[in-house]
Amino acid sequence: MKNSKKFVGIDIGGMTIKGIVTDESGNVYCRDSIATGSEDGPASMCKNIVALFTNMLLATGLKKTDVVGAGIGCPGLIDSAEGIVVFSGNLNLKDFPLAKTVAAQIDVPVKLTNDANAAALGEAKFGSGKEYKDSILVTLGTGVGGGIIIDGKLFEGGKSAGTEIGHTVIESNGYFCTCGRRGCFECYASASALMKKTKQAMEDDTSSEMWRTYSPQTVSGRTPFEYADTDHTARQVVDWYVKYLACGVTNLANIFRPQVVMLGGGVSEQGEKLTAPVQRLVNKELFGGTEFAPVKVVKASLGSAAGAFGAAALFMN
Amino acid sequence: MKNSKKFVGIDIGGMTIKGIVTDESGNVYCRDSIATGSEDGPASMCKNIVALFTNMLLATGLKKTDVVGAGIGCPGLIDSAEGIVVFSGNLNLKDFPLAKTVAAQIDVPVKLTNDANAAALGEAKFGSGKEYKDSILVTLGTGVGGGIIIDGKLFEGGKSAGTEIGHTVIESNGYFCTCGRRGCFECYASASALMKKTKQAMEDDTSSEMWRTYSPQTVSGRTPFEYADTDHTARQVVDWYVKYLACGVTNLANIFRPQVVMLGGGVSEQGEKLTAPVQRLVNKELFGGTEFAPVKVVKASLGSAAGAFGAAALFMN
Repeated sequence: MKNSKKFVGIDIGGMTIKGIVTDESGNVYCRDSIATGSEDGPASMCKNIVALFTNMLLATGLKKTDVVGAGIGCPGLIDSAEGIVVFSGNLNLKDFPLAKTVAAQIDVPVKLTNDANAAALGEAKFGSGKEYKDSILVTLGTGVGGGIIIDGKLFEGGKSAGTEIGHTVIESNGYFCTCGRRGCFECYASASALMKKTKQAMEDDTSSEMWRTYSPQTVSGRTPFEYADTDHTARQVVDWYVKYLACGVTNLANIFRPQVVMLGGGVSEQGEKLTAPVQRLVNKELFGGTEFAPVKVVKASLGSAAGAFGAAALFMN
Repeated sequence: MKNSKKFVGIDIGGMTIKGIVTDESGNVYCRDSIATGSEDGPASMCKNIVALFTNMLLATGLKKTDVVGAGIGCPGLIDSAEGIVVFSGNLNLKDFPLAKTVAAQIDVPVKLTNDANAAALGEAKFGSGKEYKDSILVTLGTGVGGGIIIDGKLFEGGKSAGTEIGHTVIESNGYFCTCGRRGCFECYASASALMKKTKQAMEDDTSSEMWRTYSPQTVSGRTPFEYADTDHTARQVVDWYVKYLACGVTNLANIFRPQVVMLGGGVSEQGEKLTAPVQRLVNKELFGGTEFAPVKVVKASLGSAAGAFGAAALFMN
């Protein structure tokens, strides 16, 4: 263990900060977590990050000099070149020099990126994308997030403010989005959108089998998939969802033409029930067909650990 | 003139092949053109490229050894790494090693890229994008094409098969597109789409002022702009067009966050009549607002010369 370089990855969530100690092969030497504590202000949150870092060094017996760097993935608009959180609604931060603040306290180099970008880099280095140079992660959670890897490197867009793939319009007069636009990919392909559509479908069809186990109060992203083979209404919901998801994925594929698109987030737990029909539609709609430059659709493999892995990978090259 | 390195750019169109001799500052030493002649097969087309190249050397008095390289922009699906035209419907080519074939005849290094990508690189190096590192060209012609420049370099997507920005869906149950999808950006923001909408509006409103000068047979992309200040129907057409154009531009801006989006092609001749309202909508819809990373919308400046300039720039770094 002492022979390989070590990397720390830190993934800041709304409730919990996750940490990992890994190496360039993705071996895990330690996993830990701590409460985010952003409600008590940025200083308190930084204290928690430092405590997490210190705990992981203690647990692994590593010295600071064994660690190449600590990468941080953070929700919100990030200036990665400067290590600044420009704005994070979740964490109540504005123009906060997170990288500098933490680096000064842990005495190890710190890099910062957006949490979705970190997750994409994690999957690309150690997850479903590890065999490919160009990959895209699309996370299907409360919103639709993700990140883009070009030629093995994280692409963050100009001033690291791009790759807001959930906020590209696919239905120009469609649902209102939290971002102010209408018809964003996120309004149709997020887990929240799927749940909303499922509730609506149940209320419109009270004979649906989905009512056997669920009420509109207890539905989840799993509900329509569970009944799709036997219930027409559940099948319609799944088809609706797959169609929109495939639409957004094909848009990204026609722009980036990656070798692989990885689906992450809660809905991706459906595995092939989701990836297979999305792959079929992408193949059908991909510009110029699939012969010259096919695009695979797969399930992301690292789950909620992707962000911490990717944060650590900010120091690998 | 003899002191600076010279670069040849060749832009293959359906009817005409354009050529240019330039240097790293964009000085033009020669412009010329020749018929494409692809109807007589690839050998004939290559003969024309070689003749164009030879004519330009004669006109400038340059020797082959004065030329760093000859870049070619070609419509269709291009394997730029291999210099192969994988497929070009316009030119009736399939798996044709264009770069190798031409290089063998002119005895100068040849590089190949897609013609829209070449135009984007030309605008980025010598046109409206020259002050910016990250730019996107959106050409509004028969279709919607364009190209993407990231950190000063042409981004072609995986296997150089990406950046098909016209074939991203913005209206998921919308108009049928030639690519097989429905609701592509191209179906709403191309000059053809604008003309179709104008004709339809004239037929629906026979009192429109547009009838004073035009019939549905004579409308062009200029027609609605010409009457937009005084005629309600013309204004509605322009607003419809601007809304969709801004939608697609904002999608690209949210993904790439470039410093500038350049509008090219026939419709862009409207200048500020087009760029100003598109800029307003982009500013309104840009993710996270315009403060941290604004995106300018400008008219592309090189017109039909962009492709040849960009082809030449394939050898500049």
